[in-house]
Amino acid sequence: MSARILDGQALADRMQQEIRPDVAAFTARHGRPPALGILLVGDDPASQVYVRNKVRAGTEAGFRVDLERIPETATLNDVLAAVERLNQSPVHDGILVQAPLPKGMGSGAQQRVFDTIAAAKDVDGFGAESAGLLSQNRPQLVACTPAGIIELLEREKIRIAGRHAVVIGRSDIVGKPMAMLLLHRDATVTICHSKTPNLAEVCRLGDILVAAVGKAGLVRKDFVKPGAVVIDVAINRVTDRAVAASLYPEGHKRLATFDAKGSILVGDVHPEVAEVAGALTPVPGGVGPLTITMLMHNTLRAAKARMGEVAST
Amino acid sequence: MSARILDGQALADRMQQEIRPDVAAFTARHGRPPALGILLVGDDPASQVYVRNKVRAGTEAGFRVDLERIPETATLNDVLAAVERLNQSPVHDGILVQAPLPKGMGSGAQQRVFDTIAAAKDVDGFGAESAGLLSQNRPQLVACTPAGIIELLEREKIRIAGRHAVVIGRSDIVGKPMAMLLLHRDATVTICHSKTPNLAEVCRLGDILVAAVGKAGLVRKDFVKPGAVVIDVAINRVTDRAVAASLYPEGHKRLATFDAKGSILVGDVHPEVAEVAGALTPVPGGVGPLTITMLMHNTLRAAKARMGEVAST
Repeated sequence: MSARILDGQALADRMQQEIRPDVAAFTARHGRPPALGILLVGDDPASQVYVRNKVRAGTEAGFRVDLERIPETATLNDVLAAVERLNQSPVHDGILVQAPLPKGMGSGAQQRVFDTIAAAKDVDGFGAESAGLLSQNRPQLVACTPAGIIELLEREKIRIAGRHAVVIGRSDIVGKPMAMLLLHRDATVTICHSKTPNLAEVCRLGDILVAAVGKAGLVRKDFVKPGAVVIDVAINRVTDRAVAASLYPEGHKRLATFDAKGSILVGDVHPEVAEVAGALTPVPGGVGPLTITMLMHNTLRAAKARMGEVAST
Repeated sequence: MSARILDGQALADRMQQEIRPDVAAFTARHGRPPALGILLVGDDPASQVYVRNKVRAGTEAGFRVDLERIPETATLNDVLAAVERLNQSPVHDGILVQAPLPKGMGSGAQQRVFDTIAAAKDVDGFGAESAGLLSQNRPQLVACTPAGIIELLEREKIRIAGRHAVVIGRSDIVGKPMAMLLLHRDATVTICHSKTPNLAEVCRLGDILVAAVGKAGLVRKDFVKPGAVVIDVAINRVTDRAVAASLYPEGHKRLATFDAKGSILVGDVHPEVAEVAGALTPVPGGVGPLTITMLMHNTLRAAKARMGEVAST
């Protein structure tokens, strides 16, 4: 038995195609495209890649995407002022501040910035109001990764209602919003985490198991109820060959990739899980591509709401 | 074996005593007492009782409590205007609008009113921002009933971290905030509800089991892991003698009460659970009294925050 692979990349491509005529129609109706303002602070290499992908995906779909770079040496107040300008901007419907902010800004800086984004433009869904509206089952702009997972489950016709969903990880950007989305679709939901003593046993309760921890190969076969749907959210860069070799047998093509490049990207789910799961998202190419697609979805939604086209609270 | 009874009334009385000197000290520091404004719309008899208890508890503890009655015939806009006046009031630190609003105001009225309350004065914790801050583990003003349950667990030295907590019910005012509070104290948390197919089995996972459904006697012995801590949140008025007789054997004093009064108040937890649980809150006299106490706690907290005495986000 080998798990069905849930191809997030293919779905993301399809959704990108689907949104394009909607974006074009919006542009025709309003004489301007829906617009996203992105703030990128500092020079973090991973952030550069993420932002480049967001700009490209948005532009290709017909959005206006404005990237404002803020130097590493800027103060928190500089960033807050840039957010305020975008809040006031008549052009911009959505605002995204790429995380992480430079460490020098302090530990509370990131949440302070997220909270400064006007709720109506909070396309990442990280502000307190967005999180509260989701928790109260009247979501407006929902964090993109968990929203993308729901989209994947629904399009793959995986039933959520009446099933037991287990989420490993309790972050504000994946674990908790994921739990709320599943709960509001009538799943029984268990949230476990680093302080859960009997993790494998609890995970085995899950008809749907979502791993969002950031620990390569954490989820082994004995974590998975036979036939369960396993969603692997993490993208871990493995640079230790021993870790890579604990995931793949000698001779496997991904080990060859490791030997050629010095690193590979893997999820939280050990490859052996494919032997017991009913369906499984790969890493890379599973959940990751859907995140950007949902960002586009949120930006269009925010634009429509701002133009009075969809109900907002 | 018979469960230890967790006496919420005794704890509430003790906490009322504890808060009094804090309220007096605040009053001395600022030349005015911390103040709560309550809006009571219409003539619902239960609401009249609840509000009277809140006014009395607050006044006894040294708060200023202003009750504004709004007639049943008022419009939603009248209520929103009253909330806005309290938002702007320099005197009032906390605002509470007693639920439910008259049905004629429509289904969305209540949440609209809650959202209109300024987050800094949202002492019931029902607004979107309060819920979001709780979900993101930076709580400001937390819904009183789940906050009271945490207080009870902590004062009774019941360990939360590392244990499995099961919450039955997913309401915005108890189930979901309860789950967040337990999660952030390092419990593994399961939320189940009316669409959970194997409810007894899931509940039996709980080292701590919180029932917040509103269905008399729902939680039977087979729902409870032996030795578990069982928290009964509901207050159900039973008016059907057959239901009362399904809870208590003939000759029990509570059946005699039923026969004398025509009704009794019971929780979601069947009395037989006392044979298996390790500890149990009674109804009445368990969680109920703590709710008002936490309202006082929240009002004092809001007052201190408004005067710059405690950190707020």
